[in-house]
Amino acid sequence: MEEVLYRVIYGDTDCGGVMYYGNYLRLFEIGRTEYIRRRGLTYKSIEEERGLLLPVVEVWARYRSSARYDDVLTIRTTLLEARSHKVVFGYTILRNRDLLVEGHTIHVPINREGKITRLPKEIIEILQKGI
Amino acid sequence: MEEVLYRVIYGDTDCGGVMYYGNYLRLFEIGRTEYIRRRGLTYKSIEEERGLLLPVVEVWARYRSSARYDDVLTIRTTLLEARSHKVVFGYTILRNRDLLVEGHTIHVPINREGKITRLPKEIIEILQKGI
Amino acid sequence: MEEVLYRVIYGDTDCGGVMYYGNYLRLFEIGRTEYIRRRGLTYKSIEEERGLLLPVVEVWARYRSSARYDDVLTIRTTLLEARSHKVVFGYTILRNRDLLVEGHTIHVPINREGKITRLPKEIIEILQKGI
Amino acid sequence: MEEVLYRVIYGDTDCGGVMYYGNYLRLFEIGRTEYIRRRGLTYKSIEEERGLLLPVVEVWARYRSSARYDDVLTIRTTLLEARSHKVVFGYTILRNRDLLVEGHTIHVPINREGKITRLPKEIIEILQKGI
Repeated sequence: MEEVLYRVIYGDTDCGGVMYYGNYLRLFEIGRTEYIRRRGLTYKSIEEERGLLLPVVEVWARYRSSARYDDVLTIRTTLLEARSHKVVFGYTILRNRDLLVEGHTIHVPINREGKITRLPKEIIEILQKGI
Repeated sequence: MEEVLYRVIYGDTDCGGVMYYGNYLRLFEIGRTEYIRRRGLTYKSIEEERGLLLPVVEVWARYRSSARYDDVLTIRTTLLEARSHKVVFGYTILRNRDLLVEGHTIHVPINREGKITRLPKEIIEILQKGI
Repeated sequence: MEEVLYRVIYGDTDCGGVMYYGNYLRLFEIGRTEYIRRRGLTYKSIEEERGLLLPVVEVWARYRSSARYDDVLTIRTTLLEARSHKVVFGYTILRNRDLLVEGHTIHVPINREGKITRLPKEIIEILQKGI
Repeated sequence: MEEVLYRVIYGDTDCGGVMYYGNYLRLFEIGRTEYIRRRGLTYKSIEEERGLLLPVVEVWARYRSSARYDDVLTIRTTLLEARSHKVVFGYTILRNRDLLVEGHTIHVPINREGKITRLPKEIIEILQKGI
């Protein structure tokens, strides 16, 4: 599990006075990127050095409460599953102790040609560190 | 069922060369807004005249194929459910006949104070027109 | 001069109740893309077939009045300058007859290697059509 | 002068492989917000407690070089001018020592009714701290 802080800017919000529902997917991205980085890898290096991509094939989010301008949010990311053909990250967005949004993204490893490929065992182990 | 066309701009895409996964939620919004408008109502008037909001409480999307810069997409929106405390819209994003993304959003009617309220029968009937 | 209509969505606005200032640059992009397309060319084809890019090197915008949710805006685009090493597009964003935002973008032609290159006379002439 | 670090995410970039030109305006916002906060004030409190808004009336940016995915950028913000009816912030976006983008935003103080108002001397002095 990893946590990153994020402060909501004007550009994240909408005229309803709260964060636009689509922008939480940016927070999910920040969360999983930092999750990977803190295990000594970067998503960028997975792409560039290994020619491996992990596109999102599915996303789900439940909005319980709203983030507002200037709120400091905690993006909490966990690894829910890591197998050779599927990776699932789980997210909770919190303000202090309040759960605002929860969700997950499902990823499938593909190569540069866009073909589904096998996630190397070594990367699976790195992702699973400290679960 | 309603269809709207949308042309992908540079600002929608990411460095993977395709539309950023979070930006499809903008397309979902465009789809449901037009769905409502074509039944003679506007989401804006529901908000302003009736003090009724329909925030997204849940979203789900499956990404099957990628939209690219300058693609003309079809946003197809259907009403999956409309009850006094729950509205569900379904979406498919197509390029020509190819299904790129499918998803749904779940909405709960609230009043200006943020309290869950009842969706008037009249609005339910308008939403159900032509299903 | 070319005009495109654009309807403001929730995702364009911010908690100030109006369109986020950065999002007008998306409208500028829509404007210049359509300006080019209506002269029988596409920006995409300039890029793909000629290996020519026209990145923005400078932008300026003046915000006079605010676009709001569900407004239908007119994006009016003009060509202010087209020379071998410089292209300038001008924009006005209107709601009915009211000027909301005006601005311009300056572009410099580069090749795929990122080197400044010459804009072919033929493209200059196409851009200047109907000025 | 104040500096904030910002890491570029996928959602900031476009299919040209670099940060979308409109998204630098988000960075400008982050820069000026932190500039104000580090002087013991928040933009939010100026709005909520004093009923004073500082909307952007003009923006200018020059793009010299491109930010890429996963770059750590420095947003450097300075106060260029602070008078009773005008505030100007200057920005430079750097990657290490390289200047990528420079720009400024001009702001005019208005009240909740949208009328131009006078920026209190006290706020001007706070903004000018440490120039």
